Amino acid sequence: MKNKTTSITDFSQLVKELNESGIKNNVAVVWAEDSHTIDAVEMAYKAGVINPILVCSEQTAERFKNIYETLLADNPQDASEKAVELVRQGKADALMKGFVNTDVLLRAILNKEKGILPKGSVLTHITAAKIPTYPKLLFFTDPAVLPFPTHEQRIEQIKYVANFCHAFNIEQPKISLIHCSEKPDGKHFPYTEGYLELKKMANEGAFGNCIVDGPLDLKTSCSAEALADKKINSPIEGEADAVIFPDIEAGNVFYKTITLFAGAETAAVLQGTLVPVVLASRGDTVESKFYSLALATIISKSKKK
Amino acid sequence: MKNKTTSITDFSQLVKELNESGIKNNVAVVWAEDSHTIDAVEMAYKAGVINPILVCSEQTAERFKNIYETLLADNPQDASEKAVELVRQGKADALMKGFVNTDVLLRAILNKEKGILPKGSVLTHITAAKIPTYPKLLFFTDPAVLPFPTHEQRIEQIKYVANFCHAFNIEQPKISLIHCSEKPDGKHFPYTEGYLELKKMANEGAFGNCIVDGPLDLKTSCSAEALADKKINSPIEGEADAVIFPDIEAGNVFYKTITLFAGAETAAVLQGTLVPVVLASRGDTVESKFYSLALATIISKSKKK
Repeated sequence: MKNKTTSITDFSQLVKELNESGIKNNVAVVWAEDSHTIDAVEMAYKAGVINPILVCSEQTAERFKNIYETLLADNPQDASEKAVELVRQGKADALMKGFVNTDVLLRAILNKEKGILPKGSVLTHITAAKIPTYPKLLFFTDPAVLPFPTHEQRIEQIKYVANFCHAFNIEQPKISLIHCSEKPDGKHFPYTEGYLELKKMANEGAFGNCIVDGPLDLKTSCSAEALADKKINSPIEGEADAVIFPDIEAGNVFYKTITLFAGAETAAVLQGTLVPVVLASRGDTVESKFYSLALATIISKSKKK
Repeated sequence: MKNKTTSITDFSQLVKELNESGIKNNVAVVWAEDSHTIDAVEMAYKAGVINPILVCSEQTAERFKNIYETLLADNPQDASEKAVELVRQGKADALMKGFVNTDVLLRAILNKEKGILPKGSVLTHITAAKIPTYPKLLFFTDPAVLPFPTHEQRIEQIKYVANFCHAFNIEQPKISLIHCSEKPDGKHFPYTEGYLELKKMANEGAFGNCIVDGPLDLKTSCSAEALADKKINSPIEGEADAVIFPDIEAGNVFYKTITLFAGAETAAVLQGTLVPVVLASRGDTVESKFYSLALATIISKSKKK
């Protein structure tokens, strides 16, 4: 009989869970030449959730030679290619972007011969957010990578997100398909008709144990009161564990709004690649990068199960 | 010489400004049959910002006969048509939706012979938000009406928003054109190329005294720190007075997120019609409807100047 598990509802619980299970990722850190990256790596290392492999300059390798594993690289592009190769060799369970432009790193990741995106795999960006005014973590996609997901890409997004929720011990995650209204409108918003198909697939078990519903707006997804006000019934019950945004503009506005105006903490990784990629940007906090590394570890762990 | 005026930075200042200028709207309230509408009308009446004309049932008319002007109607549709007629006769300076479905009211508003949307006029939804974590009001469009604004519709949105800011004594409003990135990308996001044209129009004075910039994301629009982090220069300087969203999904997510997670208060009206229309929904607070009535009054006033 399966033990009853408690779901993880914030990032400190996530770190605790990883400590208890004793699982760590070997993380290839791509061009670890800025203090922001180094600080996040140190935080995650000390918290016991990663073993870093710094892919870096001679100077940085010299500085950290007694602490971390290192691999010399000549420049950001070289570091990107070498880090990707570490993944292909099975030596790294995750990648982290350091002081390198996103497009340089992505080029190495997406390279057809030497990259780490399997053919046909959907590359998308998954975020976990802890919003102080929401009682649990909220997973969402996609604020950064897929401009206007197709129906097929959305199927993969739901699979990823369901997998994340399961890794966080959420037995039957509630996944909401976002639209500005609760009425499907195939004329102006063709994807809302696709939502009906996705619900059907979920009911048939395509995504494992989870509830998928939509179209719902952000408020009826995350507030039982708002749902009741609108006199709508939904199995999400205003308690979404995850929301799937219709396009990158909506996802990006959500991401920026909760971090700027609602004091949210976030962790994020790319999915679709052979291993999770932490692609945090300059504007993200050190904590956010640390949590992203922890997120990558639990996801790698759940895949190895 | 023009007196130096102070800009209005929250809704209580708005009410004070209206009281000092002594201007009120005559507001036709369409099917004023629910307590939520009646409460908001009472609040706005007592605050001295409106004179209501209740378009309502006999029972309601009887109840309020010694307080408000009333006009009998048989049902929501009849009330919608009669309220619209009051506008056409110059007897109402604004409309407010009561206990009537939005589509019923809109049908009366949009009627080609008897409606109040001039031919060629762009109907869109403007919101003013007071977000506790932002030091001033933030105007935005469009969370509710225009699905995917065209370039021509966006020009009108900027005109409306600039007009709103001027009515709030913001001499040179900063208006940001939102996109998930700061780089125009005509291939995936054709409207971002339109943004460049809109900036040029603004520089040439097409929208009066204001600054228009974009594409900017929500965070670089509203945070000087985020702007500096990304090493971007923008005349908005992270101090946007208004943001124009690329599509209704992004606008709606913003609206729902700030009210659900960031404690924002909002006021909203439709523009494009002969007079402002308060189209608040069931889920909105009484305060939000009251502020919307105040917003309608200052906008009607600014048009009469």
